[in-house]
Amino acid sequence: MSSEPVGDFGLIGLAVMGQNLILNAADHGFTVVAFNRTVSKVDHFLENEAKGKSIVGAHSIEEFVSKLKKPRRMMLLVMAGKPVDDFIETILKAGAEKGDIIIDGGNSHYPDTNRRTKYLADKGIRFVGTGVSGGEEGARYGPSIMPGGNEEAWPYVKDVLQSISAKSDGEACCQWVGDDGAGHYVKMVHNGIEYGDMQLISEAYDIMKRGLGMTGKEMGDTLAQWNKGVLDSFLIEITRDILYFNDEDGTPLVEKIMDSAGQKGTGKWTAINALDMGMPVTLIGEAVFARCLSSLKGERTRASKKLEGPKIEFSGDRQEVLDNLEQALYASKIISYAQGFMLMQAAAKEYSWKLQKPEIALMWRGGCIIRSVFLKDITRAYRDDPELENLLFDDFFNKAIHKAQPGWRDIVSKGALWGIPTPAFSTALSFFDGYRTKDLPANILQAQRDYFGAHTFRIKPEYANEKYPEGKDIHVNWTGRGGNVSASTYTA
Amino acid sequence: MSSEPVGDFGLIGLAVMGQNLILNAADHGFTVVAFNRTVSKVDHFLENEAKGKSIVGAHSIEEFVSKLKKPRRMMLLVMAGKPVDDFIETILKAGAEKGDIIIDGGNSHYPDTNRRTKYLADKGIRFVGTGVSGGEEGARYGPSIMPGGNEEAWPYVKDVLQSISAKSDGEACCQWVGDDGAGHYVKMVHNGIEYGDMQLISEAYDIMKRGLGMTGKEMGDTLAQWNKGVLDSFLIEITRDILYFNDEDGTPLVEKIMDSAGQKGTGKWTAINALDMGMPVTLIGEAVFARCLSSLKGERTRASKKLEGPKIEFSGDRQEVLDNLEQALYASKIISYAQGFMLMQAAAKEYSWKLQKPEIALMWRGGCIIRSVFLKDITRAYRDDPELENLLFDDFFNKAIHKAQPGWRDIVSKGALWGIPTPAFSTALSFFDGYRTKDLPANILQAQRDYFGAHTFRIKPEYANEKYPEGKDIHVNWTGRGGNVSASTYTA
Repeated sequence: MSSEPVGDFGLIGLAVMGQNLILNAADHGFTVVAFNRTVSKVDHFLENEAKGKSIVGAHSIEEFVSKLKKPRRMMLLVMAGKPVDDFIETILKAGAEKGDIIIDGGNSHYPDTNRRTKYLADKGIRFVGTGVSGGEEGARYGPSIMPGGNEEAWPYVKDVLQSISAKSDGEACCQWVGDDGAGHYVKMVHNGIEYGDMQLISEAYDIMKRGLGMTGKEMGDTLAQWNKGVLDSFLIEITRDILYFNDEDGTPLVEKIMDSAGQKGTGKWTAINALDMGMPVTLIGEAVFARCLSSLKGERTRASKKLEGPKIEFSGDRQEVLDNLEQALYASKIISYAQGFMLMQAAAKEYSWKLQKPEIALMWRGGCIIRSVFLKDITRAYRDDPELENLLFDDFFNKAIHKAQPGWRDIVSKGALWGIPTPAFSTALSFFDGYRTKDLPANILQAQRDYFGAHTFRIKPEYANEKYPEGKDIHVNWTGRGGNVSASTYTA
Repeated sequence: MSSEPVGDFGLIGLAVMGQNLILNAADHGFTVVAFNRTVSKVDHFLENEAKGKSIVGAHSIEEFVSKLKKPRRMMLLVMAGKPVDDFIETILKAGAEKGDIIIDGGNSHYPDTNRRTKYLADKGIRFVGTGVSGGEEGARYGPSIMPGGNEEAWPYVKDVLQSISAKSDGEACCQWVGDDGAGHYVKMVHNGIEYGDMQLISEAYDIMKRGLGMTGKEMGDTLAQWNKGVLDSFLIEITRDILYFNDEDGTPLVEKIMDSAGQKGTGKWTAINALDMGMPVTLIGEAVFARCLSSLKGERTRASKKLEGPKIEFSGDRQEVLDNLEQALYASKIISYAQGFMLMQAAAKEYSWKLQKPEIALMWRGGCIIRSVFLKDITRAYRDDPELENLLFDDFFNKAIHKAQPGWRDIVSKGALWGIPTPAFSTALSFFDGYRTKDLPANILQAQRDYFGAHTFRIKPEYANEKYPEGKDIHVNWTGRGGNVSASTYTA
């Protein structure tokens, strides 16, 4: 089935994100061709949400391809994994030509995007793997878009992607991220950070609810207050709304929601990648593990009958604790973003990507789930000094974290004494205290490893001498027994 | 080159572990054939350490194979990875026959062992992948040995492996673990737990040194004391010795050792596996990340000049803090092992392995790096109730952790207030407090996910009604805007 090529842009996959992106693109003057595997969804969409807009439907992939102007710009918004590969093959067979562009807007794992970029480049098709964040609302009115892949495609997709993306102070929250899977990589880290932000807010809620005995309304009011300050962000805003949202019986609906958190895997990918890179991205790690623990609802319920903790009897100044809590959240968030940028920096080195840190922060400023005033400060920090080694070395964040310290320490301490879990607040503080420590206790680890496994150690430069030269692997016979064979000769 | 088959047991790889295992087997009456790729090492070994013992050398793989009695028992102690595959191929070419047994005693990743077991079974060769732990000393005088793989091999290797293994109360610290990679899996978790134990001791040392201003001698004395109680273990013992070990100038050598911890990867594998399994093995995760952070020595040194923390001025009762520290270490250790067994339980289910929990604890009781009195209690707990859902539900550990709580909470709180990082103590406490909590704040996460991404949530059973039925995926239109399309329909 051949048709007149009227479409500026095509989109496959009419779930919530896909529908909304199409409506968004149509609003910006593009004629969009819509396709869905279950074809009845196309008709339903055309007769309802899409009615009267510059949206045309396709009932087959062939029709979809033939209705697009060349070079064709075809976006997939389907489940990550095999469906993406399947649709790529289908599109190739349906008449895609050299120069055409396929954009994967799903949550694909970046190694898949590396592979697909190369595979399609060999066929003359330009592949773009792009992160899209913003949920339903973002997709409809301007998401954050993080494209990477085949850079040849960028001039051809820039107009449509930047048009539909969010704007922040007039700048599009959509910039070219880098080669191959760089866009999906940055989106993965974004999602990991999102896990962290959400976990931090949950811990603050738990301290307020169980520690201070606050009502939904009081907690909502507190978040409304925080949303006017340094924590001003989408997630604080919606959590305020959630806390205000009452069920028909007049009590907060959120209290009735099952406390078993789901996962789509991107937070896990970030944590695994951090382990693989050897970067201490502890806050995201704890956030993922916290979701795992939450999902053990049955076991926790049984444990709750067998394991007791302290009784919480708070009788101090509530506002003081709330102020400290705000600082704890802010400081922990600074740590989480510092860790995230450390990871991206390591990845850029590992994969030879030219990741632009100010542009990444800019992309996250609008449209996406983690959008916040905070990201404006990060953009500013990296624009001031693109070579900034760590966010904590920027004057603004340096001052902020010093100011936040006393409150942050108080909250972590209170959590421990009250028996309220604060895995993310705590790990952020431990990271901070470890990061700012010149001499960590890892000398003990190295001595132990040399003692039991002859794994050798190195000497601190300030103690180097003839016996213990700097930069050399040293083995000591700690016991007077055992051999002098060090494990570094562990070859056969 | 053919020779008389005199050997009961053959071993390839003459680094420290290999040499010591050979000497160990010879001490137990086995005639051992030794081979090494760099053949000069064979001669050196025979002329020195092996002199006068029932050890014969081989100068080629063919000679090695021909010198062994059938079915041949050939153990590899070479670097994990490609060298293992290469040696397997070399052995096959050198005349290995159906029924022969190849044992990989290195730190192989369990998926490789899964693969090799199957590959060799197809050729009629029985493959055993076994964890061996104990370092130089253990290998020489009795390591912990954790064999898995092709169970047909077990009757043929049991005598030699159990002879050379450590004994605990007369029982061999070597039992059949399970099919395929089960032995290497359990060894991997063992190593992860070892990372955790080492990190906990390092944190205790840091609290003593920087928090309480103690000398090496004082800290050594404290560990000597702890080693008489519930913490009685190999790692506490060697750390005591390390703290007592003075350099020629009369000051503790450990203080001169570079605080950048190395890794061989097995701790990382455990953390990644935990993430993949969705099990909150947080303490090992933090221990791995702590090593990562320690290795950023240069960046930490720069950070130490830019980031300040509280001044520590301790003037209280030192002994009281030390008692609390002992409890913090003990409680955190209980959590770490509980998490480790949770992970193994999940793996057993995932891979259909019949892991015997009491036998695993038994194997770890002697010979290996984490050997301790503590593991005796774990063996007892799982023998009392093989179906025990969680170590924390056992009466003994239940009482122990309740008793330890006040001291543990005090230390985590002090670490936060003093600015001394306690990532492992803290995460253990957060896990405990999360685990024993029926209603975690993950309801907030689920509400957020449904708000921004229509990811749906479920209702707590106690609030289920017609509008919100139990066990159903529910989506609420939180804003009054947005669609009613839920993300669970995210298909194309």
